[in-house]
Amino acid sequence: MSILVPPHGSPVLKPLLLEGAEREQELKRAAGLKRVPMTTRETSDLIMMGIGAFTPLDGFMGHDDWKGCCDSYQMPSMDNLFWPIPITLSAEQALADSINVGEEVALFDTETEAIMGTMKVTEKYTIDKAHECQQVFKTTDQEHPGVQKVMAQGPVNLAGPVKVLSESYYPEMFDIYQRPADARKIFEDRGWSTVAALQLRNPMHGSHAYLAWVAIEVCDGVYIHQLVGKLKPGDIPAEVRVKAIQALVDNYFRPDRVVQGGYPMEMRYAGPREALLHAVFRQNYGCSHLIVGRDHAGVGDYYGPFDAHRIFNEIPEGSLKLQPLRMDWTFYCYECGTMASMKTCPHESKAVIDENGQYQGGARLLLSGTMLRKLMSEGKPVPKEFSKPEVIAILKEYYDNLEEKVEVKLHGAATGDVAKK
Amino acid sequence: MSILVPPHGSPVLKPLLLEGAEREQELKRAAGLKRVPMTTRETSDLIMMGIGAFTPLDGFMGHDDWKGCCDSYQMPSMDNLFWPIPITLSAEQALADSINVGEEVALFDTETEAIMGTMKVTEKYTIDKAHECQQVFKTTDQEHPGVQKVMAQGPVNLAGPVKVLSESYYPEMFDIYQRPADARKIFEDRGWSTVAALQLRNPMHGSHAYLAWVAIEVCDGVYIHQLVGKLKPGDIPAEVRVKAIQALVDNYFRPDRVVQGGYPMEMRYAGPREALLHAVFRQNYGCSHLIVGRDHAGVGDYYGPFDAHRIFNEIPEGSLKLQPLRMDWTFYCYECGTMASMKTCPHESKAVIDENGQYQGGARLLLSGTMLRKLMSEGKPVPKEFSKPEVIAILKEYYDNLEEKVEVKLHGAATGDVAKK
Repeated sequence: MSILVPPHGSPVLKPLLLEGAEREQELKRAAGLKRVPMTTRETSDLIMMGIGAFTPLDGFMGHDDWKGCCDSYQMPSMDNLFWPIPITLSAEQALADSINVGEEVALFDTETEAIMGTMKVTEKYTIDKAHECQQVFKTTDQEHPGVQKVMAQGPVNLAGPVKVLSESYYPEMFDIYQRPADARKIFEDRGWSTVAALQLRNPMHGSHAYLAWVAIEVCDGVYIHQLVGKLKPGDIPAEVRVKAIQALVDNYFRPDRVVQGGYPMEMRYAGPREALLHAVFRQNYGCSHLIVGRDHAGVGDYYGPFDAHRIFNEIPEGSLKLQPLRMDWTFYCYECGTMASMKTCPHESKAVIDENGQYQGGARLLLSGTMLRKLMSEGKPVPKEFSKPEVIAILKEYYDNLEEKVEVKLHGAATGDVAKK
Repeated sequence: MSILVPPHGSPVLKPLLLEGAEREQELKRAAGLKRVPMTTRETSDLIMMGIGAFTPLDGFMGHDDWKGCCDSYQMPSMDNLFWPIPITLSAEQALADSINVGEEVALFDTETEAIMGTMKVTEKYTIDKAHECQQVFKTTDQEHPGVQKVMAQGPVNLAGPVKVLSESYYPEMFDIYQRPADARKIFEDRGWSTVAALQLRNPMHGSHAYLAWVAIEVCDGVYIHQLVGKLKPGDIPAEVRVKAIQALVDNYFRPDRVVQGGYPMEMRYAGPREALLHAVFRQNYGCSHLIVGRDHAGVGDYYGPFDAHRIFNEIPEGSLKLQPLRMDWTFYCYECGTMASMKTCPHESKAVIDENGQYQGGARLLLSGTMLRKLMSEGKPVPKEFSKPEVIAILKEYYDNLEEKVEVKLHGAATGDVAKK
């Protein structure tokens, strides 16, 4: 019998999305309300609330919950329930001034120019943004992509319960897009109780596949859960990644042990704190475990490689029903003759791969992104121990097209410059 | 910081072994007491109590606890604390009749002819042995080695608190022999919190090594915990196994992720029920997880291959702090090119190994014990994907000597027979 982990802080999921006639009616009503534009992060958080991924939140947080999340992972408005990162909505000063507490507003997505929801404003407050950044990101460095967004947001936060009216383009654009209730239904139908979520925002090479294989060995199955929300520039687009991962799953996994899904949240790159947020919403998706690898949700050098492992021991006991599956740096080892990690491989040397992609000796295969790009762009083989050929074929196609585009663009720009002279 | 799982039903270990002057005094006193001979199983259980591996038991169980364990995994005398298999002491009728309730007796090991402990008899009772067998072993078949021992034991059970006076030959005979407090100390010194116990009573081939590697990936380390108590005839002796496993650990593991230990309990071959007993005493040893593989602690066809997985869901919630790491049938797969299991390997075919130990095609390498013996005895290579050469060398040496001995013995017997004619 399948007994999945319950949602966070609630016996049932609490999706805030209206559907059918109720939605139509609310959309009409929203057209007459004052519009509050949302950042892409705010829009993605609203959709997460809509689909129940942020159960049991009922809207954007007020000051006390903002402070509680920042300082002690707690929401005072909800019996001090655990929550690791504030979920807030910001507004420019003039707009905020024009809105009265008690007023209902329409939540507007500037990217798609769509009304995404409505909110009854119950509170207007200002925050110490630097404090939020220090607590959540452990830095106020403006180079940090998460810090940038917090510092750039409007000076006033608006709080209140929301009704969600759209999931934006996600359901249409991504076959793997999935609501928590749908994922739970699949797990239940398969009779699973223990499900390990594998968070992915990059293509799945051998080292990620190994994380999934290990998780399958110790759980009923793995939920390959891809971010289809916004990434930072330079990351591989979700549609390419989805295709590459599908190729891997089709050829190297047992279909009865894998479920794929996509979720719309935007990356904050908050490292350990974000690992906790990933844990909260994966519990809502029905996962009993979350694979937490090296530098989970990190960026640059802001976090120690295992800060996200440790933080699960630092939060109050009982905060989560989900447990972390802490995993070390994984790789193929030519001397072990298998995938391994820093914890299992007794060989210290690094494998040498020459410019033609040929193995020249040594143990641990650790290929840099730069080296991988170089091999692909020069049409050289990528060691199959690093990544399966089916995956590499799809990535190569993307990079080849990308380089053509970049070349065309550069060429066009140069011509323009010449013409101006 | 290391935070190990607490002992079972107690904040501290409760070893019942006396040491130093106290032990000397009790030994002298015991010499004057009536002797109760113990079966090898009873002796091994007494030592388990002595070293604190059966914390929080204070002696052999009375009738109510016997019945509670059989019928509902509970000890009424201990607030209905979870316990999966009765720990009892039997006596022949005449001896039992000669002992008064309240009397102190000496516990005598017939194998070594040593006084192992003393007990204050608080209760004498008879049991329905067939009922115990049916509940614990799920069978009353006399071919079952565990059933045999219960049916052969004396008709009266004696209960009462014990003082333990000896660990028998285990500390001297086995370097890996270890008390729970010593294992906990090692784990704490290493800063471990999550430790997975790998129960071993057979040599460690590739498939067992893989269980250990997977466990290391998801825990701080693995405790390779070998049974050095009694096995059934035909099993490889503990001293040979210990040597073979040491060779594997030395060459294919990181020393900082493995601890080895031995425990003196005799196998009951009770399958799922014994998996639970293994869990209880591994928790006492400080392990947060127990690897439960295919047909754990089983024998013959008495148990379904995953009955021992399921039973952890069937016991009352909160019975154990330790969690099972449920693992499927593992093997090397030539098409995966790696170790895998029925859950991770998508290839269904069986690898063909010819009579010379050469791979002839196919995917999953599943070598029977008979085939392995045959290859070794004929000096043919065993596929290194099945078992590491360092391990095979040690086993081959054992079998070669064994066959010589068996031949000598058979030859001797034949001569004897001839002489008699």
